[in-house]
Amino acid sequence: MSSGNTAVMPWRPSGKRRSLASPGMRTAAQRGHEVRRLRDMLRAAVQGGRYPDGQLPGEAELMAAHRASRATVREALSLLRAEGLIERVQGIGTHAVVRPADERLVEAHGVIRPDQHSLLNRRTRPRLLDRSEIAAPAVVADRLGVPAGTPCLRLEYVALHQEEPVWLATNYALFPEAARLRDCPFVTDWYALMADAGVEFGQSEFIIGAEPADPLVAAVLGIAPGAPVLVTEQTIADPAGRLFDLAFIHTRADRFRFVSRGTRVPGREA
Amino acid sequence: MSSGNTAVMPWRPSGKRRSLASPGMRTAAQRGHEVRRLRDMLRAAVQGGRYPDGQLPGEAELMAAHRASRATVREALSLLRAEGLIERVQGIGTHAVVRPADERLVEAHGVIRPDQHSLLNRRTRPRLLDRSEIAAPAVVADRLGVPAGTPCLRLEYVALHQEEPVWLATNYALFPEAARLRDCPFVTDWYALMADAGVEFGQSEFIIGAEPADPLVAAVLGIAPGAPVLVTEQTIADPAGRLFDLAFIHTRADRFRFVSRGTRVPGREA
Repeated sequence: MSSGNTAVMPWRPSGKRRSLASPGMRTAAQRGHEVRRLRDMLRAAVQGGRYPDGQLPGEAELMAAHRASRATVREALSLLRAEGLIERVQGIGTHAVVRPADERLVEAHGVIRPDQHSLLNRRTRPRLLDRSEIAAPAVVADRLGVPAGTPCLRLEYVALHQEEPVWLATNYALFPEAARLRDCPFVTDWYALMADAGVEFGQSEFIIGAEPADPLVAAVLGIAPGAPVLVTEQTIADPAGRLFDLAFIHTRADRFRFVSRGTRVPGREA
Repeated sequence: MSSGNTAVMPWRPSGKRRSLASPGMRTAAQRGHEVRRLRDMLRAAVQGGRYPDGQLPGEAELMAAHRASRATVREALSLLRAEGLIERVQGIGTHAVVRPADERLVEAHGVIRPDQHSLLNRRTRPRLLDRSEIAAPAVVADRLGVPAGTPCLRLEYVALHQEEPVWLATNYALFPEAARLRDCPFVTDWYALMADAGVEFGQSEFIIGAEPADPLVAAVLGIAPGAPVLVTEQTIADPAGRLFDLAFIHTRADRFRFVSRGTRVPGREA
């Protein structure tokens, strides 16, 4: 990939250039880096829907486009297959299994009306696992700033999109909001439920991490144990800033990604 | 957990309450849900640094605080141990292994000056893996909106914090920015490099997903294959909106979480 072939690299290498060794002298570590870089690029293309109909180019084309050896291309494809992102069908070729929904964080926070095509715009339906009143466990109470044992509603559901589980959420909501969330039909998504129940909110906070699905989460989401999952801890505050909901959300990483944008304010030093 | 014990649940259950079966009648699935919920709460407490000195309460205290059986507490702790988040030391108890850095997304985008304590405030140093000029591979060129083969700088590094790898980033930068990024000393973090190199930017976009570390990423980050990793695809635009950088970033989920806040604009319907 960094071959120094001037026929395809028509500019003068800088004096500070640090080349990889020539192809014949690649170490195992360098080969590993090449496979990893190619895998990153192909994953971005597959997940970003950049191949028409999800059909990946053939090996020869990938080798040319990425100046990679056949072995490197095959190893990168094999990693994507192991992730479940692509499938190879004999005689037809390699194609993307599914493209994840890329959802803007502002929409996920519910603070703007989601785009018409967003999964978050009433396009999921809940499979309810639990909607019962409990005494807030210590951790929940501590996070929401109330005494342990304060009554709360535990509302737990799997969000289905086209009958397929996408995320699993356990909400712990305080009263008085809890009463409205308990008594209102839960038809599509959480923000629709809040709106239908007349529950106003002012701010949402996410803490976003990742986990390999343990057997319990895997069983609920219908994925293999070890499959990648985004874990989001959400708190929701009312317009006055009082926290009234804490949620733990496990989202299939093969079906969902968060999109976030930051814009620099001119004249404000970063 | 939903025992209906009025001594600790001093409000009247609603008519719509849907209780779990009583403890003696729990199905395996219900037991699984209880373990998972407790694990979610304990993970939030451990990662959020809510236990003084990272020391977890003993089993009896956890049982009481969460109204859980000993078996449920033990299974939840065992899942956290399997994730590498807690350790048990004979005779001392169970403690958090490490608390991840929770970094605000706006700081991660580099659009505001990071908090003094932020990992992103010149508190990492790079171990450079590559800084060489290459012809932009097809996927990179397509994403940046330039012809395949356009010269670019590949700048790849591991971000170290206290000598420990936290993330691995591969940047593909176009010229003219690439020349300045190539020739400037890379001392702490990416945004410091951009500032030192005099590279102005206007917007940053992240697409955030998750992956289990494959053996290649695991080797570079010093973690076990299968360990959870946040994958971020970043594009950076100049003040005029022209994209000049694409990066693939693999971040240890046991060391780093993203924090995002959304505030509802009053009078603007969500």
